[in-house]
Amino acid sequence: MFDKYFEDFKIGHKWKSKGRTITETDIVNFSALTGDYYPLHTNIEYAKKTYFKQRIAHGMLILSYSTGLIKMEPDVIVANYGIEKLRFIKPVFINDTIHVNLEVLDLNDKGNGTGVVTIKQTTVKQTGEDCIVGILKILVSKK
Amino acid sequence: MFDKYFEDFKIGHKWKSKGRTITETDIVNFSALTGDYYPLHTNIEYAKKTYFKQRIAHGMLILSYSTGLIKMEPDVIVANYGIEKLRFIKPVFINDTIHVNLEVLDLNDKGNGTGVVTIKQTTVKQTGEDCIVGILKILVSKK
Amino acid sequence: MFDKYFEDFKIGHKWKSKGRTITETDIVNFSALTGDYYPLHTNIEYAKKTYFKQRIAHGMLILSYSTGLIKMEPDVIVANYGIEKLRFIKPVFINDTIHVNLEVLDLNDKGNGTGVVTIKQTTVKQTGEDCIVGILKILVSKK
Amino acid sequence: MFDKYFEDFKIGHKWKSKGRTITETDIVNFSALTGDYYPLHTNIEYAKKTYFKQRIAHGMLILSYSTGLIKMEPDVIVANYGIEKLRFIKPVFINDTIHVNLEVLDLNDKGNGTGVVTIKQTTVKQTGEDCIVGILKILVSKK
Amino acid sequence: MFDKYFEDFKIGHKWKSKGRTITETDIVNFSALTGDYYPLHTNIEYAKKTYFKQRIAHGMLILSYSTGLIKMEPDVIVANYGIEKLRFIKPVFINDTIHVNLEVLDLNDKGNGTGVVTIKQTTVKQTGEDCIVGILKILVSKK
Amino acid sequence: MFDKYFEDFKIGHKWKSKGRTITETDIVNFSALTGDYYPLHTNIEYAKKTYFKQRIAHGMLILSYSTGLIKMEPDVIVANYGIEKLRFIKPVFINDTIHVNLEVLDLNDKGNGTGVVTIKQTTVKQTGEDCIVGILKILVSKK
Repeated sequence: MFDKYFEDFKIGHKWKSKGRTITETDIVNFSALTGDYYPLHTNIEYAKKTYFKQRIAHGMLILSYSTGLIKMEPDVIVANYGIEKLRFIKPVFINDTIHVNLEVLDLNDKGNGTGVVTIKQTTVKQTGEDCIVGILKILVSKK
Repeated sequence: MFDKYFEDFKIGHKWKSKGRTITETDIVNFSALTGDYYPLHTNIEYAKKTYFKQRIAHGMLILSYSTGLIKMEPDVIVANYGIEKLRFIKPVFINDTIHVNLEVLDLNDKGNGTGVVTIKQTTVKQTGEDCIVGILKILVSKK
Repeated sequence: MFDKYFEDFKIGHKWKSKGRTITETDIVNFSALTGDYYPLHTNIEYAKKTYFKQRIAHGMLILSYSTGLIKMEPDVIVANYGIEKLRFIKPVFINDTIHVNLEVLDLNDKGNGTGVVTIKQTTVKQTGEDCIVGILKILVSKK
Repeated sequence: MFDKYFEDFKIGHKWKSKGRTITETDIVNFSALTGDYYPLHTNIEYAKKTYFKQRIAHGMLILSYSTGLIKMEPDVIVANYGIEKLRFIKPVFINDTIHVNLEVLDLNDKGNGTGVVTIKQTTVKQTGEDCIVGILKILVSKK
Repeated sequence: MFDKYFEDFKIGHKWKSKGRTITETDIVNFSALTGDYYPLHTNIEYAKKTYFKQRIAHGMLILSYSTGLIKMEPDVIVANYGIEKLRFIKPVFINDTIHVNLEVLDLNDKGNGTGVVTIKQTTVKQTGEDCIVGILKILVSKK
Repeated sequence: MFDKYFEDFKIGHKWKSKGRTITETDIVNFSALTGDYYPLHTNIEYAKKTYFKQRIAHGMLILSYSTGLIKMEPDVIVANYGIEKLRFIKPVFINDTIHVNLEVLDLNDKGNGTGVVTIKQTTVKQTGEDCIVGILKILVSKK
């Protein structure tokens, strides 16, 4: 989706990313890199006794990987502006496969050569369940 | 901060994390793990010609590392509920050192043994500048 | 345990860490990082024909992870002084979960503003078996 | 094999490396490090519907790991000269174990203190199947 | 380039990838992952005394990263067939930035629903120097 | 050194490993993998105000890497028995290069087909300073 200038976006436009499997390796590596060793991600014995009965991926892991699945072309993207009203809805387990659906909700010309594109970002897993839903704002260049 | 039950939180309560330096290794590893190889993070020659003149850390890197700096005790935390109105304000460069300031803004008893704690989370760097400011909602257990 | 000044330690004081599961990812990553590719850690076919019948974690992996599980507060810790008489007793297999038990054995005021705390460190797995037992010496600040 | 000067190589000389298991962690880490997220390596749902029915390792992963299994002594090796006619023959799956067989095919004295050793390199897995076969050229020092 | 079916390739067609900086982190991580700890990549003191005076990236690192820079669409690519006549020409140093140029040299319809695309692959660095030149063969689907 | 059976060891026998540079990447990766984020390893601003004025490597990092530098042949090594009287003497800074010196101190035939080899292990850096000195005990097979 993010391979065009601000003028070429249309409200209602949709885009779907490729998929990516979340492996045990991803959860171990993400705990390591971020320092977030919360036991629901890192301790099988602890996780067995929780509502989920097994380890789950960090919400931030799924959110960060979702950003990686959205291909952004240099020079049209100015900045990742921010996040509005994002909810972590369903957990992602080891060996679940996620992809990202995007939909353009709003366009706001800033009048200085850039515009803010408001998109709804939904990270979905192979069961069809929504895992994360949020509104993101991306600052895009005008021609 | 997240080492007590819902009843023990007070609006206005503040907390500060320890610091962490963002190194070139962190940016390379985060690009790798998330698949986000946007050239402002991964290409020195490209970055030289941008407004920042050098590579910067991914917004998601700083946000994820911020979560890692907030120590959460198991059994009191139920879930990372979501994010409201988060802004990426200032870039973080290689060798900047970040820490996280938290402030309790609101408390909302859900009436089912849990409560939502609304906190303002500010990630700051060693220059004193705010890099990311956001409102997060964490679901916490009651006693 | 290591969140207080030398004067506040007492012989006999005990402390228990949180747990951490040792995954295949940990063994692969540790072999990679240290360059220790000994086949008992890296070769399923080789490991099948040994006494253990499967791969095991490096002794150094379990020892290093044990240090990571012992939370040390800055400014009270001066240095990791050394190790006395450490034994690798039982192997740790993929998906075992370890934690660390500490006990203060001795206190030795060095007379220069620091003291040596001698602790017994036992790394235990979920079966209740001791995997590593050692005596460590940590140099701690006085008030 | 690569622990001697050019004059001590003989055509027909053979050598066999130790083995190494290719784990899911290796495939996830290699995708991350190289940026090669092709779904046959990273998406279980996609891979199920291919001829292989499961994920496979990158050809480049097996080739790179093969180089790591060939121990080269410093000071005798001048350079990795190049590759002739290399074929990716059979896929390597998660938990397959590979090793490398080398055979000296040709020796070419360059007349400037170095010589080119032409070797046939075959990467084999535990089933006995050849996975990669290639001809490599290594530049080796003379005494 | 690899986003179309066999019939849509033309001899002489060219393509250029985005760039990627090779950092010290990449060299350390690649040594770790592959087990290739040859001192020209891992030992500053050793490297100072060689012709290059500093550490260089593994030839296999540059070759693997080149593959990661060539975007391949699923379903059109059947397999990475092999490599012909590849030379490691110039070293890549820490902080060099590489990109890949491709040119279609030959097309060979296999008569079974696939065709072999022969491409010349040149990995170039920011100085304009060719680092690796090789001929690759990719098996591509027909419509 | 560890490539022979117990009967072939001699008291006084010495061995020296190859060298390895300790990079910033190593310190970041080791903090991540072990969860040991002590600020003397991870926070430039904190480290500036300490006695060392800069970050240092974890003692456990240097000890683990030392084990990786000691090449052990499968089938002669039975187990890493333990550590005696190990001292962390001097810090290792970013870009220091270490190697390991071994000396056989004692041999103890266990009478059950194995023997314990007691070695003095000294990790040295490029300045000539000893960083870690310890006594290790390795269980080795008899012929």
